[in-house]
Amino acid sequence: MQMLIFRDSVVESVGEGVKNLKPGDHVLPVFTGECGDCPHCKSEESNMCELLRINCDRGVMIGDGKARFSQNGTPINHFLGTSTFSEYTVIHEGCLAKIDPKAPLDKVCILSCGVSTGLGATLKVAKPKKGSSVAIFGLGAVGLAAAEGARISGASRIIGVDLNPNRFDQAKNFGVNEFVNPKDHNKPVQEVIAEMTDGGVDRSLECTGNINSMISAFECVHDGWGVAVLVGVPTKDAIFKTNPMKVLDERTLKGTFFGNYKPRSDLPSLVDMYMNKKLEVEKFITHRLPFSEINRAFDLMLKGEGLRCVISMEE
Amino acid sequence: MQMLIFRDSVVESVGEGVKNLKPGDHVLPVFTGECGDCPHCKSEESNMCELLRINCDRGVMIGDGKARFSQNGTPINHFLGTSTFSEYTVIHEGCLAKIDPKAPLDKVCILSCGVSTGLGATLKVAKPKKGSSVAIFGLGAVGLAAAEGARISGASRIIGVDLNPNRFDQAKNFGVNEFVNPKDHNKPVQEVIAEMTDGGVDRSLECTGNINSMISAFECVHDGWGVAVLVGVPTKDAIFKTNPMKVLDERTLKGTFFGNYKPRSDLPSLVDMYMNKKLEVEKFITHRLPFSEINRAFDLMLKGEGLRCVISMEE
Repeated sequence: MQMLIFRDSVVESVGEGVKNLKPGDHVLPVFTGECGDCPHCKSEESNMCELLRINCDRGVMIGDGKARFSQNGTPINHFLGTSTFSEYTVIHEGCLAKIDPKAPLDKVCILSCGVSTGLGATLKVAKPKKGSSVAIFGLGAVGLAAAEGARISGASRIIGVDLNPNRFDQAKNFGVNEFVNPKDHNKPVQEVIAEMTDGGVDRSLECTGNINSMISAFECVHDGWGVAVLVGVPTKDAIFKTNPMKVLDERTLKGTFFGNYKPRSDLPSLVDMYMNKKLEVEKFITHRLPFSEINRAFDLMLKGEGLRCVISMEE
Repeated sequence: MQMLIFRDSVVESVGEGVKNLKPGDHVLPVFTGECGDCPHCKSEESNMCELLRINCDRGVMIGDGKARFSQNGTPINHFLGTSTFSEYTVIHEGCLAKIDPKAPLDKVCILSCGVSTGLGATLKVAKPKKGSSVAIFGLGAVGLAAAEGARISGASRIIGVDLNPNRFDQAKNFGVNEFVNPKDHNKPVQEVIAEMTDGGVDRSLECTGNINSMISAFECVHDGWGVAVLVGVPTKDAIFKTNPMKVLDERTLKGTFFGNYKPRSDLPSLVDMYMNKKLEVEKFITHRLPFSEINRAFDLMLKGEGLRCVISMEE
């Protein structure tokens, strides 16, 4: 679960050199950016902008390297390029996607992060075909968004894999129509899935970050055409290991960051998908809380309760 | 180096049920097949036919499970579905590609195996764009065919990686225009290549089968868009290991078998490429020997001398 503040999603004023935005524009702030000029932004495949790529340590504005916040003269650093836990913030224009002003900001705000990550992992990277089988490892919000992508793609079998059976009921609303709990089996889950699917699924998406789950997600795809996409972020010391013959037998392993979406170029079309009723976002929003209760939202997140909580600045 | 016998590449007679060939057809026999009916043959992506996929142990005809050769009443098993070390042989029609009868069989015969494997690994799997940088690990015949594919694709930098510097001169004829000998450096070759190419190559092809070379080939591609293709076959106990963040940073790892070419559907067009002068095959043929000297050809192969030796049944 992730918190998002929507009241700040309207541009109040613009600084020197801002070219693509004007006061009054409705925007989605994004933790990673798109400068438009670097090799990544110019590549059709990458969204890992050299200038504005996610950086948890930067804490200042690109350009003059200074913070825009202070308290009694002491600078307060920015957070993840957006600093959205406040009513007003200062953001590089490359981290703001200009969207349809008719879109309800208190709903489409959730497209700024994990929901787009999961959706794009399926729609832009795994690309299942109509009638495909797709395995989703991890049924949190990112995994359910990946499942929503599989549903939109017309996949016929969407197999959810999770250690927590309580998640299975909720997952049905996102198109998941078969379930595997690795705890119910005495063999590796990749073997269970291969047996269920006559040799393996067409596509798999790993949305937990657990290294063993990554290996299973790769090894459970069918030889000849299977594609596994890693989405979840591993621990620093994790090592991915597999028998190289699994690769040579024409399996593909890919990774994605933010669903391969370029924030400025691609997010507006996701908002349009929602406006055209091709994508549901409401079902991801399980909680709404006022800013004064933000710590309760953190508690919910840490307990793994719910999917997404939208924070309002109003009481 | 691999031996091929070309005199048997004309159909002499056909058995019951053969639909796609008739006596007089010119064909290329292939060690793997295409039944046309299985899920792999019906998939646009796979060439790993369920019925006729490479099988070193089968030794008999599919169907009645019997050999078609014998000596004094003792059956002699088939080899790799083709048994081409003889003037006449019996082959499943799914392992025969019907080609342009004007094509010189003593040249295009080399498209039956490694040369197509390397070419297809680049043209059908890695798919470099015009102006790309491509690293080729291993400059034997398969690696040089992969380089030839990169040259045909319009790659601007084709970086050959080999421990044997004697191979570098020959490789220039196949479009390789930069060389790296891992022995000349005190750091992993993936780091050397990343420094040469501002972060990594666009595509890499691993054509040695050495597991460390496979890991280097994967880790030397650029984040955001790099694609590494494994071609060389590893030893049975090899384990591919990498930091999963290398995957999550939008690198792709793929494997290929016979360059993803479907023998019957795709080989005729490779022959046409040769006939239209888009593909050179002559430069792969470094030796020609009569069948009586076949053991000399094996010696050359074991010593790593030359690329391909074509065996003639005539003295």
